[in-house]
Amino acid sequence: MSNHFYALIMAGGIGSRLWPLSRQKSPKQVLPLLGEHSMFAMAVERLNPLLTPEDIFVVVGEEQVGLLKAEETGIPDRNFVIEPAGRGTAPAIALSAIALRRRDPEAIMAVLTADHFIGDAEGFREVLKAAGQVAAQDRLVTLGITPSFPSTGYGYVERGRFLINANGFTAYQVVAFREKPDLVTAKHFVTSGRHSWNSGMFVWKASRFLDELSRTMPEFYAQLMTIEAALDTPDYDRVLRNVWQTVKTQTVDYGVMEKARDVAVIPAEFGWNDVGSWATLLEILDNDEYGNVIRRAEHVGVDTSNTLVLGRDRLVATIGLHDMIVIDTGDAVLVCPKDRAQDVKKIVDALKQSDRTQYL
Amino acid sequence: MSNHFYALIMAGGIGSRLWPLSRQKSPKQVLPLLGEHSMFAMAVERLNPLLTPEDIFVVVGEEQVGLLKAEETGIPDRNFVIEPAGRGTAPAIALSAIALRRRDPEAIMAVLTADHFIGDAEGFREVLKAAGQVAAQDRLVTLGITPSFPSTGYGYVERGRFLINANGFTAYQVVAFREKPDLVTAKHFVTSGRHSWNSGMFVWKASRFLDELSRTMPEFYAQLMTIEAALDTPDYDRVLRNVWQTVKTQTVDYGVMEKARDVAVIPAEFGWNDVGSWATLLEILDNDEYGNVIRRAEHVGVDTSNTLVLGRDRLVATIGLHDMIVIDTGDAVLVCPKDRAQDVKKIVDALKQSDRTQYL
Repeated sequence: MSNHFYALIMAGGIGSRLWPLSRQKSPKQVLPLLGEHSMFAMAVERLNPLLTPEDIFVVVGEEQVGLLKAEETGIPDRNFVIEPAGRGTAPAIALSAIALRRRDPEAIMAVLTADHFIGDAEGFREVLKAAGQVAAQDRLVTLGITPSFPSTGYGYVERGRFLINANGFTAYQVVAFREKPDLVTAKHFVTSGRHSWNSGMFVWKASRFLDELSRTMPEFYAQLMTIEAALDTPDYDRVLRNVWQTVKTQTVDYGVMEKARDVAVIPAEFGWNDVGSWATLLEILDNDEYGNVIRRAEHVGVDTSNTLVLGRDRLVATIGLHDMIVIDTGDAVLVCPKDRAQDVKKIVDALKQSDRTQYL
Repeated sequence: MSNHFYALIMAGGIGSRLWPLSRQKSPKQVLPLLGEHSMFAMAVERLNPLLTPEDIFVVVGEEQVGLLKAEETGIPDRNFVIEPAGRGTAPAIALSAIALRRRDPEAIMAVLTADHFIGDAEGFREVLKAAGQVAAQDRLVTLGITPSFPSTGYGYVERGRFLINANGFTAYQVVAFREKPDLVTAKHFVTSGRHSWNSGMFVWKASRFLDELSRTMPEFYAQLMTIEAALDTPDYDRVLRNVWQTVKTQTVDYGVMEKARDVAVIPAEFGWNDVGSWATLLEILDNDEYGNVIRRAEHVGVDTSNTLVLGRDRLVATIGLHDMIVIDTGDAVLVCPKDRAQDVKKIVDALKQSDRTQYL
């Protein structure tokens, strides 16, 4: 790989749809949801041997940085970009881009996530190589996922004309980003052959991204330049903290990508899943002959199928449950049907409103 | 009331359909399922002022007698009839009947249960008075419950001709005992106007019951006479234990009542429910505006109705649950639909088979 290639792992957020396991003090990305290692550790591991920990940056909130450093992934402390507060993906990536550009003016950065599942790590690294080659030509590359079903839970990227072949993959010009569609539209997208899921992962030159940012988010770009001017000075923390107070929350999709020039998509498949809810975990994890996924719990089931039981050294008994989710942590139990898994966020909202912070 | 009137409270059994709350070491009858006091304590209390604790006998297994004595109901220790092992209701009642007849040859005994709900205690005591008057005429009286719906979970008693009025109630001759019917038959029973639920509560002279026993269960009666001969002797425990080893399990309904002469039924209503499963608890206990019954748990519900949540100082979060049961004890969690509540026994059976005795 080019010696200007770096990864940025976005590791902020809580993953509140994975409550009650995911909490402020144990967010989704530090949980070993898919195996023995945390989601964050797996995100680092799957880059090997493409990238060494020295070339991996992490952007994260200050309340969570300690948890990630404790993972001992080998990423140097100086590679952690710390946000004083969450402001969405656009400011998080931009703050990291100025740090990366300072490290290496030619830096190509792969913007990755800490909390997604990727079944085929080797295939994933090959896509990154391809995207790096396309990004070297000053394009903003988004990694598209070939849809396996008409999901209404993901955004879509619509592609237009062929741009270039790279490392066995094909890059296309992006025609449009589409927000989460209804089912009819999703079915249309899947049959069109022109739509990929928007994985939320991107590859570009840091400098090229910042150029587009100056055009698409000029107000924030001005704020960012104030921060950049303080980089590597004793004032950095103070300036960052001051400026960040007035930064508006914005996603990179809406704030930059939808308006950017020279945006490319590389459609690919590498067993990707955003692990957005307990329902997706039920899909990913190995299940038994009844379609049940049982983790950590001592389970006794009568007429129970397609059910996720995540326990905590306690007996969980189920009767007549189908397509259900039962999560038992030390202090809380969640029970809901699989098709209501998106609404777990409502429980978290209710807990916030009633100020039961011990469960957040 | 006649000074020959006594109560026998049957307090054996576990109540395994109320697992995981009901356990060998904390069976249903010692649980405060319906209020602040245990089911057993409530069974004693509701007899006041009809009967003093001096006139209340209790039949129970030896592993549970300590729990009941610890309730401090005022029942003297000598009134506890201890079974070396459970052999069904016929032997339990018979063993108590010989003790009662020894205490008082004219004893009329009301055979009651420790683990049923009775909403109208005063009305219940009035029925007992009526039944005592009918039993004084050498009849075996069964308390029938006027059905409020076509239950397939209860047995039925079919009545024939009018026998006698007593204390504002009417006694009828019993035509037949009917086992738990299917729904079509149950509907027929309810509309017939001739069928009551079999409450499993009876009133008779101890001596009259033993006479019928000698006819209907002669083999067991002979065994019982061996035990009776040892009553009040130092040999009693040894003889009882020896004989009991060969006693066959039998219910009083099948073993005695279905074949007995002079069986009467007094149909009545006193808010009776056998609290046979979690589903019945959902019916009895006060519910909130969504029909939910929440006890002890800190509950957060989204779109949850007609659901029983029994917790233990832990948060229970539910989404999209309707007619469901969630029971969380310290070491176990049960989740099942209300209409599968009868199958809780299958969980207990599975635990027995896999020798997980810590949960029994």
